[in-house]
Amino acid sequence: MKAEILCVGTELLLGDIINTNAAFIAKGLADCGVGCYHQAVVGDNPGRLEECLRASLMRSDIVITTGGLGPTYDDLTKETVAKYFGCEMELHEPSLERLRELFVKFGRPMTKNNEKQAFFPKDATIFFNDRGTAPGLAVEQDGKTVIMMPGPPREMTAMFDNHVKPYLQKRSGSTLVSHSIHMFGIGESTLESELRDYMESMQNPTIAPYAKEGEVLLRVTASAPTTQEADKLIAPVVAYICKRYEKYVYGFDSATLENALVAELASQGRTIAVAESCTGGLMAKRITDIAGSSKVIGMAICTYSNDAKQALLKIPSETLEQHGAVSPQTAQLMAEGVRALAGSDIGIGVTGIAGPGGGTAEKPVGLIYIGISSARGSRTVELKLGRGYGGERSFIRHLASSSALYQALAEARGQQ
Amino acid sequence: MKAEILCVGTELLLGDIINTNAAFIAKGLADCGVGCYHQAVVGDNPGRLEECLRASLMRSDIVITTGGLGPTYDDLTKETVAKYFGCEMELHEPSLERLRELFVKFGRPMTKNNEKQAFFPKDATIFFNDRGTAPGLAVEQDGKTVIMMPGPPREMTAMFDNHVKPYLQKRSGSTLVSHSIHMFGIGESTLESELRDYMESMQNPTIAPYAKEGEVLLRVTASAPTTQEADKLIAPVVAYICKRYEKYVYGFDSATLENALVAELASQGRTIAVAESCTGGLMAKRITDIAGSSKVIGMAICTYSNDAKQALLKIPSETLEQHGAVSPQTAQLMAEGVRALAGSDIGIGVTGIAGPGGGTAEKPVGLIYIGISSARGSRTVELKLGRGYGGERSFIRHLASSSALYQALAEARGQQ
Repeated sequence: MKAEILCVGTELLLGDIINTNAAFIAKGLADCGVGCYHQAVVGDNPGRLEECLRASLMRSDIVITTGGLGPTYDDLTKETVAKYFGCEMELHEPSLERLRELFVKFGRPMTKNNEKQAFFPKDATIFFNDRGTAPGLAVEQDGKTVIMMPGPPREMTAMFDNHVKPYLQKRSGSTLVSHSIHMFGIGESTLESELRDYMESMQNPTIAPYAKEGEVLLRVTASAPTTQEADKLIAPVVAYICKRYEKYVYGFDSATLENALVAELASQGRTIAVAESCTGGLMAKRITDIAGSSKVIGMAICTYSNDAKQALLKIPSETLEQHGAVSPQTAQLMAEGVRALAGSDIGIGVTGIAGPGGGTAEKPVGLIYIGISSARGSRTVELKLGRGYGGERSFIRHLASSSALYQALAEARGQQ
Repeated sequence: MKAEILCVGTELLLGDIINTNAAFIAKGLADCGVGCYHQAVVGDNPGRLEECLRASLMRSDIVITTGGLGPTYDDLTKETVAKYFGCEMELHEPSLERLRELFVKFGRPMTKNNEKQAFFPKDATIFFNDRGTAPGLAVEQDGKTVIMMPGPPREMTAMFDNHVKPYLQKRSGSTLVSHSIHMFGIGESTLESELRDYMESMQNPTIAPYAKEGEVLLRVTASAPTTQEADKLIAPVVAYICKRYEKYVYGFDSATLENALVAELASQGRTIAVAESCTGGLMAKRITDIAGSSKVIGMAICTYSNDAKQALLKIPSETLEQHGAVSPQTAQLMAEGVRALAGSDIGIGVTGIAGPGGGTAEKPVGLIYIGISSARGSRTVELKLGRGYGGERSFIRHLASSSALYQALAEARGQQ
């Protein structure tokens, strides 16, 4: 079974937004064992859309589109597909009903143009939109299928995972199952060179490493008639890798560092508090991204200025004058200060130079200190993130917060 | 003049990497006044690549490819294009010389396969690669042109800006210029239904609305022989829209709310402090994302627990008991408390229920209160974000922080 991805939207053609949908769907197709050899982007233009549709359906069994399902007059994907297949458009009462309910909930009047979202080609399979107004759909004719999803990634990804994937898996004979092992603190090339022989010796499952924002994940993928059989093939490989890289492994299957940290602390009934300077709320934001984090974090402080460090964390002005705000001494006092202030089990302090300004020869952009304080005592970690990585502010902040989360997790696990 | 973008790479088809090249080139083409109605992705497969090339060159004058110029056996873009046009491949001595110099610099032996990068179709225009080994090139025949660039974004972007853009501008007569108006607090469908007649009456410039994470942007695009003339066409339209939607417009040309807020405060020499509950550091994170934000924010506090609200912000326990942590009263006291603690000009407090748990019939998931305090006094804003969109935590947090940033901006501008 072969599929193609066809993303519809003038904003993609103009380069206003980056097409993340295509990569997401491509991965999803691979998971379902569906081959994909073409992706295309076309604007909100029915003539060109129909042309692309024709070319794709000549080469492939399935075309998956995103975009053009909304309420406005230039949203024409459904109508173009209906015309291509020679189907009538019909009102789908339950969808109209749901739209009306949504607008009542929004507390906004439902303008007439929104009704367009409840019309579908005759006999279409309709996919519920859990995160927006425009439903998705699939139309089949003569062995050719067009699956249409809305363009906004948060709507599309949920619809793909919840509705389109099951629809595709039903049609494909075998299942591909993937599990991922998440690691921090080891480089992709190191991991790959250590595991190369092992990886190359495997046929089913296969192992592939991916680097992502300072982290590495190993994806283990097996093909089998059922999920259960695939999982059986995967289990011993995962066990081997988790044991060998125990120090670096923090999670399994799309976990994040913040997920692992909140889960670890919650299971121990312990709490954390953080004081951030250069990461300015990012670490707190990542922890509180996790539902249920209120059990493990009561307070976080962003002391961006020296005044705030002194006033809230009681860091002596001598420390700031003698060693500077970016120093292991300050990081440690921030960790100890916020732990005392919050009365938490673990305290973390992060200070550094995120750039692009503020760096010196002695303390360059990307120099970060992390302080860790708990009943076991205090320690600090130095990071140099400015070199090699181009020293980009958002990357430095992300990596600094990742390292701090990793150190907090290690502290909670009693590992360091 | 019409162009298409054709990105070559199996890693794109598999979804292993997101195609940022297409958006970058699309923007660049618009800058050069070159229309672009199709983008495509194809794997490292010469047969399918040739097929795509043929389809694109039938529709358009120029095809711009990325990828497949490297030294390995599956890098076949140049060779496929040469075959398509019936050209011989020739050694380009200066390119070979440069490759040898690069390898000396790297301190690595130059393996034989690298020489492939110095062979080009006869009479090709060669583009220097400032950031890597593989040069780019353009091949012209019978009014059709194929421009080939390497796949790695940092090599491609430099090559496009330094070599390909000048090459294209020389060939194009007119320029397309776009400006965007960024709004918050108004829905896309409301805006569209209000502006529809106006938008449809326009030919040059044109207006198009886009919705993005709770925000709306209107893009105004004009075509003219020069940028100055295009800007002249655009100016009255922008002025009209900005006046009509003054209340909602926060920025112009790819600004973000946090950018607009930091710029506004910096220009006034004023400061802000924030106290967050449900957004847990997200608002602080977004403000400190902006380089130079240390001038306008010295302190941010994440008081996730009631204890923290009392200890740091001096919120009386009676307020918390009587009205609850999620109440306009608490939001206002958070704003006033953090403003007093930080000694800032503006104080913002955000409290609410981000979910998925913690909601009640009276105070459902998505109920948010924002407190705003300044020398002008205090006020609060209520948001109901949980309904309709499935109440997803990250979306509620994002929208709550966006609203708080928008309120802070309005306060700084003296608008509310």
